[in-house]
Amino acid sequence: MSRIKDIRFILKKYTYKRPFCIAYGFVTETENIEIEVITESGIVGYGESAPSFRINGETPEMILALESKVKDMILDKEIRHYREIFNITDKLLSSPSLKAGVQFAVIDALCKECEIDAWEFFGGVKNEIETDRTVSVRSIEDRIEEAIEIYKEGFRIIKIKVGEDLNKDLEAVYEICRNTEGCRYIVDANENYTLKDAVYFVKKLYSNGIDISVFEQPVSRYDIEGLKYVRFNSPFPICADESLKTKYNALKLIKEEAVDMFNIKLMKSGISDAIAIVELAKTANIKLMIGCVSESSIGINQSVQFACGIGCFDFCDLDSHLMLEESDFRGSFRQVGSKILVG
Amino acid sequence: MSRIKDIRFILKKYTYKRPFCIAYGFVTETENIEIEVITESGIVGYGESAPSFRINGETPEMILALESKVKDMILDKEIRHYREIFNITDKLLSSPSLKAGVQFAVIDALCKECEIDAWEFFGGVKNEIETDRTVSVRSIEDRIEEAIEIYKEGFRIIKIKVGEDLNKDLEAVYEICRNTEGCRYIVDANENYTLKDAVYFVKKLYSNGIDISVFEQPVSRYDIEGLKYVRFNSPFPICADESLKTKYNALKLIKEEAVDMFNIKLMKSGISDAIAIVELAKTANIKLMIGCVSESSIGINQSVQFACGIGCFDFCDLDSHLMLEESDFRGSFRQVGSKILVG
Repeated sequence: MSRIKDIRFILKKYTYKRPFCIAYGFVTETENIEIEVITESGIVGYGESAPSFRINGETPEMILALESKVKDMILDKEIRHYREIFNITDKLLSSPSLKAGVQFAVIDALCKECEIDAWEFFGGVKNEIETDRTVSVRSIEDRIEEAIEIYKEGFRIIKIKVGEDLNKDLEAVYEICRNTEGCRYIVDANENYTLKDAVYFVKKLYSNGIDISVFEQPVSRYDIEGLKYVRFNSPFPICADESLKTKYNALKLIKEEAVDMFNIKLMKSGISDAIAIVELAKTANIKLMIGCVSESSIGINQSVQFACGIGCFDFCDLDSHLMLEESDFRGSFRQVGSKILVG
Repeated sequence: MSRIKDIRFILKKYTYKRPFCIAYGFVTETENIEIEVITESGIVGYGESAPSFRINGETPEMILALESKVKDMILDKEIRHYREIFNITDKLLSSPSLKAGVQFAVIDALCKECEIDAWEFFGGVKNEIETDRTVSVRSIEDRIEEAIEIYKEGFRIIKIKVGEDLNKDLEAVYEICRNTEGCRYIVDANENYTLKDAVYFVKKLYSNGIDISVFEQPVSRYDIEGLKYVRFNSPFPICADESLKTKYNALKLIKEEAVDMFNIKLMKSGISDAIAIVELAKTANIKLMIGCVSESSIGINQSVQFACGIGCFDFCDLDSHLMLEESDFRGSFRQVGSKILVG
């Protein structure tokens, strides 16, 4: 038995190795908040919140400002009663990335106390997953160059960000595919196409013999009918990302038959909703991807442990730590090229 | 780390303290199969299968005949990889009670290895639940007598079996309510009303000032439209029992908006589908009951650990062990009247 004696929030700043560009602009650095949950027996559980203003409306300052609130909520709670802590932290409606970091830190402490690895706590299905790497939205030449670099590093799943200019996007996807034979491709528009452009885009790719594995969030997160329209007019599976944060979003997407796949990110859902979304998706025959925001190695570790344990993710997009300058690698996993190993 | 070295199936026969009668007939004894999962480190995990021919089409002989199949499926599997074992045992399509017993025995062994109580493994939300007791379908006088006896023993949630004769059922419910003031009532027709009778029944109760908390499985398990009709014509919450075995049933019931509540029984769903159904129900704002078949104390223990850990059951109908003659009490819980305590 071990109660939570203290919780610490530690601001960390990371610089991107190169600017990371999506349809909305580019970032050169990120600020994450490390969460330490300390038990009365001296065990420290580690988590990380990677706040995203674009996705969740969160800022690092806002997360830091919630420290005393989180302490009020869960100090003195027993870590073995983790679902009680999940229920309490589910109230952090405006800060899902904080919910994720706190919930994982509690699970990490519990696993240390019980001498079980976190991936085993979550179910122990796989001790190895494969991650993609992501090509930013830049000039066509830069995008091709970045893709070839990724390919040469041994990655065989490539995520291509699109959504800025339809024709340039088509050309970039053609050229990337032509230069990286044998790969699978996730194309992500980050909400930035119109409905008609999205359908034109996939039909054009298809008629040119391009095969993509997933087309992610083609239209606005709020346009569930639009997602469904694209789904039933696309030869490729359609995946919800920004449209899917809570388990309630998942049920709505299932009821509306809007998508073929869900992209779960712990930073959008926390551990509690991520578990629920997995069960909903498996029941409704929806495929699963796990993604990330801007987590460092200690934050990506959360998704690695979760994805390996649950074991039902068709695609893992867990590459943010590879984009950041970090003085020390701090995950409980081994990165061997595109492979991520636990246990 | 501990692999499964052996699995034992042990047939146990139990006699009911008094014949247990529902709309379909009565039983005087039951045969359950105890499941022992033995790990290479010598830990023994205990589970129980309580087969039901009426609910699942199972017989004890059939469960025993699956012993070698189960051994083929999971011998040598690591108990820490419990979701892998869940995925494998999910293939036991014809024998959900066996799936339940095997899955719980694995979790029990894992919890012993990690020195965590099973209710904490499931989430640790509650260390106390309250069970109902059940009044059989017999003569009106016998039903009233049994209800008063239950009431005098301190139970304040009474489950009343109906479904044999509409007018006798109405009279029995009136009289039971009149003689057991301050109780809550679950009325269970076990599929045995017509749609019109079901609506007549609840409206008649309501107009006579009788308040019941749950009306369970009024019509055939296959009549989802019928359940929905009753739901929207009933002042009382409608609960699915026989209609709800797998998580796929749960999703269908949610999509059809057919019921207000789910009665989860591990013997219908196993642990794996029960976990999924909980997540589905919480997401869809469906209330939850946990029920039983004919488990002895070691089998009821499974549902007790699950219900306490998950902590979101509005009603617990875990009384089968109280109906059976047992030489030794074998649950990891304490029964104090209607209260069930863990930890």
